[in-house]
Amino acid sequence: MYQAILSHIYKYVSLNEEEEAFLSSQFNVTQLKRKEYLLQQGNICQHIHFVNEGILRAYFLNPEGKETTVMFAVKDWWITDMYCFANQLPAMVSIQAVAPSQVLCLSKERLDTLLTEIPKLERWFRILMQNAYIREQLRVIQNLSQSAEDRYYEFLEKYPQIVPHVTQKQIASYLGITPEFLSAIRAQK
Amino acid sequence: MYQAILSHIYKYVSLNEEEEAFLSSQFNVTQLKRKEYLLQQGNICQHIHFVNEGILRAYFLNPEGKETTVMFAVKDWWITDMYCFANQLPAMVSIQAVAPSQVLCLSKERLDTLLTEIPKLERWFRILMQNAYIREQLRVIQNLSQSAEDRYYEFLEKYPQIVPHVTQKQIASYLGITPEFLSAIRAQK
Repeated sequence: MYQAILSHIYKYVSLNEEEEAFLSSQFNVTQLKRKEYLLQQGNICQHIHFVNEGILRAYFLNPEGKETTVMFAVKDWWITDMYCFANQLPAMVSIQAVAPSQVLCLSKERLDTLLTEIPKLERWFRILMQNAYIREQLRVIQNLSQSAEDRYYEFLEKYPQIVPHVTQKQIASYLGITPEFLSAIRAQK
Repeated sequence: MYQAILSHIYKYVSLNEEEEAFLSSQFNVTQLKRKEYLLQQGNICQHIHFVNEGILRAYFLNPEGKETTVMFAVKDWWITDMYCFANQLPAMVSIQAVAPSQVLCLSKERLDTLLTEIPKLERWFRILMQNAYIREQLRVIQNLSQSAEDRYYEFLEKYPQIVPHVTQKQIASYLGITPEFLSAIRAQK
């Protein structure tokens, strides 16, 4: 159950047996069927989630009912609405399983406890946050520097495991293009 | 010289005199005139920069010569091309002073040394990265959820110190709208 997350941590810090046991005890495990929700927009974002298995999608629904995919998460990734998690506010996005998934859930309170009790975990979490920041910054710059076509083919190459489980419409909204434009790109090929 | 950065750090961790001295010794100070460059797109991104005074702007120039403002930074903020800094690669953006500025520059090597020598700084840096990630994630969601008009007036309210130093074109590109659309918004008022 905790193999994936421990391997993830061990890339950056080592833990003794006691620390490992304490860490594992802080998580709750949640199983999700396809289309089941981990978080609903408007509910307090209480947890950060580590994906043990499966694929999830975070999306924003605007008042006109238009859905935009903000993020995908696959095995070994973390997913939450970080602003609302950090401030324990109503979530701005919904998080839904797009394939059967198993996630480890950590509450804000337990994360704070973990970082206080095992300060070396700060390093691991710092690298996590740094990578998340880099991913978002890269996305902004790539949206500016690459054509929609290039970004689409890069997405297919980078996330082959996601593609079979999501709609073209979801991919289009993640890439910031219309579904019609994505159809045109695919028709060209 | 190090008052601002030390106050910034002391929000999250405390240092003894020796640690404070060691930390201060790791930075180089750079003074920039208005329009002077801290980093040029294509040059290796060697440093992360803390803004002691002034205002800076990071922008991306596409092959057709179109400039997009990716980020602003004011007093007490950090600025770099994080992906290229972390991997010591040619920068994807240029960083330019838009007002006379003083920045503290920290190389990747020295940052790594700092985090090894004073591990509790991991906490500070984790919170930095977390805030940077939140800022980018919020920007994505606000771009989806708010009208360009709302985002413009929020920008004016949030960053009154930036507005006098930058062009409407730079603000428009930061908000992801055309300068013509921004003119239309301003004309409506």
